[in-house]
Amino acid sequence: VDEFDLIKEYFSPLENGTHEVVVGNGDDAAIINMPAGKSIALSVDTLVEGVHFLSDAPARMVGYRAAAINFSDMAAMGATPCYALLSLTIPSNCDKWLRDFSLGLGECFREYDCSLIGGDTTRGPLTISLTIIGAVSGRQLTRARAQIGDCILVSGTLGDARAALDILNKPSIGVEEKFLVNRYERPIARTRLSVSLLGVANSAIDVSDGLLADLGHVATASKVGINVYVDTLPISTSLESIYGEDKAREFALSGGDDYEVIYAIPETFLDEAHLMANKTGTRLTQIGIVTAGSEVRCFTKGGKEIFSSSKGFSHF
Amino acid sequence: VDEFDLIKEYFSPLENGTHEVVVGNGDDAAIINMPAGKSIALSVDTLVEGVHFLSDAPARMVGYRAAAINFSDMAAMGATPCYALLSLTIPSNCDKWLRDFSLGLGECFREYDCSLIGGDTTRGPLTISLTIIGAVSGRQLTRARAQIGDCILVSGTLGDARAALDILNKPSIGVEEKFLVNRYERPIARTRLSVSLLGVANSAIDVSDGLLADLGHVATASKVGINVYVDTLPISTSLESIYGEDKAREFALSGGDDYEVIYAIPETFLDEAHLMANKTGTRLTQIGIVTAGSEVRCFTKGGKEIFSSSKGFSHF
Repeated sequence: VDEFDLIKEYFSPLENGTHEVVVGNGDDAAIINMPAGKSIALSVDTLVEGVHFLSDAPARMVGYRAAAINFSDMAAMGATPCYALLSLTIPSNCDKWLRDFSLGLGECFREYDCSLIGGDTTRGPLTISLTIIGAVSGRQLTRARAQIGDCILVSGTLGDARAALDILNKPSIGVEEKFLVNRYERPIARTRLSVSLLGVANSAIDVSDGLLADLGHVATASKVGINVYVDTLPISTSLESIYGEDKAREFALSGGDDYEVIYAIPETFLDEAHLMANKTGTRLTQIGIVTAGSEVRCFTKGGKEIFSSSKGFSHF
Repeated sequence: VDEFDLIKEYFSPLENGTHEVVVGNGDDAAIINMPAGKSIALSVDTLVEGVHFLSDAPARMVGYRAAAINFSDMAAMGATPCYALLSLTIPSNCDKWLRDFSLGLGECFREYDCSLIGGDTTRGPLTISLTIIGAVSGRQLTRARAQIGDCILVSGTLGDARAALDILNKPSIGVEEKFLVNRYERPIARTRLSVSLLGVANSAIDVSDGLLADLGHVATASKVGINVYVDTLPISTSLESIYGEDKAREFALSGGDDYEVIYAIPETFLDEAHLMANKTGTRLTQIGIVTAGSEVRCFTKGGKEIFSSSKGFSHF
């Protein structure tokens, strides 16, 4: 059996989901219908072996994570993933890798009810390119509509994934460390919360580059400034107990890969936002405010400025 | 300037087109609307340097061709390309390659009114992954609906691209050879003809693997046999004048990369099909017929069988 047959075997079951597929895998193109009245959200993410994941990374984890970080892009727009196309570039003799990868991918696809409807397989250096087709209604959550006076809130906790990158090099790990590693390996796309905040939030972005960097993207796109109050950052007890307050805060501000979503929400909608967070079982924390200007700035409880986009960090 | 800025500069102008883009390049996902009442066609094609194109292939040609062969997949479904996502994996120092590639891609995108709305850029071995989002109405042209008694027709001429692969190795080439090379480097996606044959053709596929191989895909998917009459194959005068009748026929049967479209059309619709071909200025030639059975078989004018899927070629 060659890899191309294996792919059929491993990936065809992922053409599941409850969406309307007119023509699925195996023709020149897939044909789908979208729910009436919805706009279509599209994103693609490519992961290259040796750049985005190590050669010895468990393939099942790589598969789950590849799907989850794509779904997070959808969540950051207020969109729900529906369909996916998978383009795999694979070297020879990667049967076991393919099987494990498909298991991880499938697990995440089932959790988010996303259906794999097509793709392409080619020979070459291991590269995974995943295109997600999602549905979104009403006012989308772009980066560009944060308004002066909006509150900045973030889902979940920050800095855990950055800590995981340190921990992954350790020979043996404990329970708290395992929690942090899991936060890196199995990001949670904040689909339900984000969809429920359509019409409530003005703007959203997911934390992939790091909180300060991603807030910078919002500030630039929305032409506003953003003040962050570092004492309010949501830090997991695992992160703080292992790394201490200062390091935890540093990871929360600059570490990437958390895939939590940052929202800009008008003060009048704060109660509604927290209600939605409770309903979806998601921690939601206010960490700052949108201001005039163009900089992201960080302040301590005492009002001391410890960071600005133009000057970087001052020691704290 | 790093490549990631260059990509913004080179590829943003390709966000052209006349389609409705709600949120374009630069956010977490692109948001589009589709024409009301249309289904959505989706396909992805990945090209790897050293596998699908040579390192010294002109980047502008690679760009044009990458777009055209994707549009051909759409045409083979009766779909019109609307939007595209481009995922580029690039090594360092490929500024000139990127500029030339974007020029070729842009040229083809403008010809087919397709808009580049997003993508992803990563570091790694040069790989191009292009996702096309198209619109299709009515009954799609799948591979699976050819009926016994249908006529098999093909657009354009066959075998030219195969000849081009030989010619590309030559140090200098003449006018006829240039025609053949052009057929390889700038495939024509048969969008207009295919769309006009929706409701007329039962089935369609584009010739990427080679006529016999691709007819085999139709036979398998439709659970039918197909007889091909080799004396009717459309051969360009350039191909025949350089290679002679026998070699030209061999290229037409087995060579790939022509990206012409094969249609299965009921005899009652033949006149209408030829009318549409005239209207769109496309050569359309009947080359065979759909039969009971499961094999693709080739016959000469004299009725001699020279090929069958199960036995391969007999010398002719």
